[in-house]
Amino acid sequence: MIRITVWNENKHEQELDVVKKIYPEGIHGCIKDFLIREEDFEVHTATFYDEDHGLTEEVLSNTDVLIYWSHALQDQFSDEVAERIKRHVLSGMGLIALHSAHYSKMLRLLMGSTMTLKWKHDEEEKLWCLAPLHPIAKGIPECISIPEEEMYGEPFDIPKPDDVVFAGWFSNGYVFRSGCTFTRGKGKIFYFQPGHETNPTYHIPEIQRIIVNAVRFCNPEGIKRIMPQNKEVKG
Amino acid sequence: MIRITVWNENKHEQELDVVKKIYPEGIHGCIKDFLIREEDFEVHTATFYDEDHGLTEEVLSNTDVLIYWSHALQDQFSDEVAERIKRHVLSGMGLIALHSAHYSKMLRLLMGSTMTLKWKHDEEEKLWCLAPLHPIAKGIPECISIPEEEMYGEPFDIPKPDDVVFAGWFSNGYVFRSGCTFTRGKGKIFYFQPGHETNPTYHIPEIQRIIVNAVRFCNPEGIKRIMPQNKEVKG
Amino acid sequence: MIRITVWNENKHEQELDVVKKIYPEGIHGCIKDFLIREEDFEVHTATFYDEDHGLTEEVLSNTDVLIYWSHALQDQFSDEVAERIKRHVLSGMGLIALHSAHYSKMLRLLMGSTMTLKWKHDEEEKLWCLAPLHPIAKGIPECISIPEEEMYGEPFDIPKPDDVVFAGWFSNGYVFRSGCTFTRGKGKIFYFQPGHETNPTYHIPEIQRIIVNAVRFCNPEGIKRIMPQNKEVKG
Amino acid sequence: MIRITVWNENKHEQELDVVKKIYPEGIHGCIKDFLIREEDFEVHTATFYDEDHGLTEEVLSNTDVLIYWSHALQDQFSDEVAERIKRHVLSGMGLIALHSAHYSKMLRLLMGSTMTLKWKHDEEEKLWCLAPLHPIAKGIPECISIPEEEMYGEPFDIPKPDDVVFAGWFSNGYVFRSGCTFTRGKGKIFYFQPGHETNPTYHIPEIQRIIVNAVRFCNPEGIKRIMPQNKEVKG
Repeated sequence: MIRITVWNENKHEQELDVVKKIYPEGIHGCIKDFLIREEDFEVHTATFYDEDHGLTEEVLSNTDVLIYWSHALQDQFSDEVAERIKRHVLSGMGLIALHSAHYSKMLRLLMGSTMTLKWKHDEEEKLWCLAPLHPIAKGIPECISIPEEEMYGEPFDIPKPDDVVFAGWFSNGYVFRSGCTFTRGKGKIFYFQPGHETNPTYHIPEIQRIIVNAVRFCNPEGIKRIMPQNKEVKG
Repeated sequence: MIRITVWNENKHEQELDVVKKIYPEGIHGCIKDFLIREEDFEVHTATFYDEDHGLTEEVLSNTDVLIYWSHALQDQFSDEVAERIKRHVLSGMGLIALHSAHYSKMLRLLMGSTMTLKWKHDEEEKLWCLAPLHPIAKGIPECISIPEEEMYGEPFDIPKPDDVVFAGWFSNGYVFRSGCTFTRGKGKIFYFQPGHETNPTYHIPEIQRIIVNAVRFCNPEGIKRIMPQNKEVKG
Repeated sequence: MIRITVWNENKHEQELDVVKKIYPEGIHGCIKDFLIREEDFEVHTATFYDEDHGLTEEVLSNTDVLIYWSHALQDQFSDEVAERIKRHVLSGMGLIALHSAHYSKMLRLLMGSTMTLKWKHDEEEKLWCLAPLHPIAKGIPECISIPEEEMYGEPFDIPKPDDVVFAGWFSNGYVFRSGCTFTRGKGKIFYFQPGHETNPTYHIPEIQRIIVNAVRFCNPEGIKRIMPQNKEVKG
Repeated sequence: MIRITVWNENKHEQELDVVKKIYPEGIHGCIKDFLIREEDFEVHTATFYDEDHGLTEEVLSNTDVLIYWSHALQDQFSDEVAERIKRHVLSGMGLIALHSAHYSKMLRLLMGSTMTLKWKHDEEEKLWCLAPLHPIAKGIPECISIPEEEMYGEPFDIPKPDDVVFAGWFSNGYVFRSGCTFTRGKGKIFYFQPGHETNPTYHIPEIQRIIVNAVRFCNPEGIKRIMPQNKEVKG
């Protein structure tokens, strides 16, 4: 079994009718729903409002892949928990950072760059696959149409990705490296742009398929969960 | 001095009024005109119709950077001259391949992939800079608007580039890795998408600046022009 | 089933006692022997001396992954068959090029660079893993000791690899990017340096494991075997 | 002028005769001495023991390229100053991190990975150039012999480098990605392994040439020193 924790800030769902209507069980609930259809996925959820944000040492130790959506409360997120997530990724936990999590504390700690970008609500997106042979692109058409999404635009200040799997086209003239993989320590990371809270993007089957594929890609199968250390060689 | 040969097929300029009007001296003439403003550039031109396509052993031996535009006569281009260009690039000659030269014999020989893509005439393009610190992006704004260009779209079957410097957005919903660098042997290569013959793209100052920058980037300064060889190590 | 063709020049095995002794069934026979232990591998062999080198249109159409060892007869290899292999790789056939196949016609056609390097017989090698999370490194220790191998040394004139999975250390002071992945068209390629004919390298279990992993990595599972084409977009 | 700050911990030089003898003016003094031979270099030095480690807001604002050597006091280095350095790199200051600075706070903040490696004193090193066309390799021979250095060995837990310019071979059987470039925000970074305090490595002319080249490469010429920001697009 691949043990997945879907973490969601879960603020907008409490406060905005439009979001509540699209995601009545929260973004985390929606993602859990399509993940549990996979026979070998075991899915747990947690939110900002849980104690320790629901991301205790124990939870993370028992998580193979963390899926993470955050936005409005990024500044209020615990520094300690952000460092804890980083430590677990470096030790081998997979990480899928969704949409506005580009600017989460934990992802900025792992990337080292500013992770800044341009943004605008309510544009059409076409998501193009640039790396059709990548495991995350398996079974994905060369283009996915998203009727409405938040535009994210370049320059996107990211370190050199391992691979740019998807690029986004937006109706107002912008492009974006929308699906990028990174490695940090023993952890495999996928950043994926689509998923603004007021758009029903996580209900789109192809988007769900990408996230399922990304879970398999980031899963640390056969990786011993120990943080890399400096090591003196003798003799 | 950087010794540049601007090579152009020069067929459309002879046959189509619309092209003749935009490029009365041919695409090669236009490119030469803006290059010679640089004090350290020495510019020579050649076309398909010259003997040996104007790309003799002697011409290439005296070329630091070859700029190459081709389209309708790619199949008729001499296999021998295509191999000769490849050999000179591997020995250190810089190469800037423009627009439809993505499918030239010589570039496919150097890349090894099919270099295929999607295309459609007469779309608007916005050219975004993804690598603002790259030497080819020096002094270039983050976005260049091109009122009308030929759309080139992903998937673009290219080997992993050294860097993707520019990405193109097109009004009909496509994106493209429009400016990519590659290294082959001792040669530095820049592929640059804009420049359809019926659009006045090479008259745009920012596009000219990119080509000037690319000449400096691809120039094999201090590189000894000898083809790499297998070498046995003794002792 | 993954359908594998192991191709071997098979010249040294006929002529040199030292090679015959190490590989009585040929290098291809040895590789076949450890591959067929995998339940989902179906293994076929072919050699230089077979008609059309045993690599007919039909054979390649029914090959998911081609493993290829060549050396002394590279110049005599058919140009037509080399182009045929390239075409099948671009259409999705996986390729594992071993040792001196760095300089095979088909690999140089696919890479575009000179593929040249330094070499010297009879050195000790230590093969280090640089990308422990790569699928080809699964279950592989961080270092494999090879008591005697042919040294291959940098500069190795290769295009930018997708990933450098292994690096070789040699007792006479040289290093080498010994395990590199590339993508061309729909084909995944792994170049792997160890395997000189007078050294029993393909009998080492960890080396065998790497080749098994590479077969799985290069296998075009779910990829439709059609060569990418330029395509006009309408409307 | 390129304004350079050479920062050195300067602890070993105070305490160990062997270091004092090799670097009577400190490692920073030695580096300054060979840098100031370049007509367009303006060189300033600072050490751990200066107030704010000599790396105040004002000093960094007036530094184009920071060269940084650290080792024994990395844990005691101010968190605030480490964050300050990171901020200035993201805003465009170039950074050259030398040897044991792989494990400095500021570099780990910028890289996000653990930056761990293997190590052993007193081995012979051969430094091979893997990217002879890279600006940092200009005028550098394909191999530099270093009679004695501290061995650093793989696996080196670094993010995917922009380029691996040099690889180290060590007499005890290890290899290392010894010269790597990275981009973070507007800052260009070069990590360079040679330079253990008890070995006179910075007196080697080719090593000095690499550092001079790296200063030119990392210099943010024409880059406006403002931290990248998220930006809403209107209309």
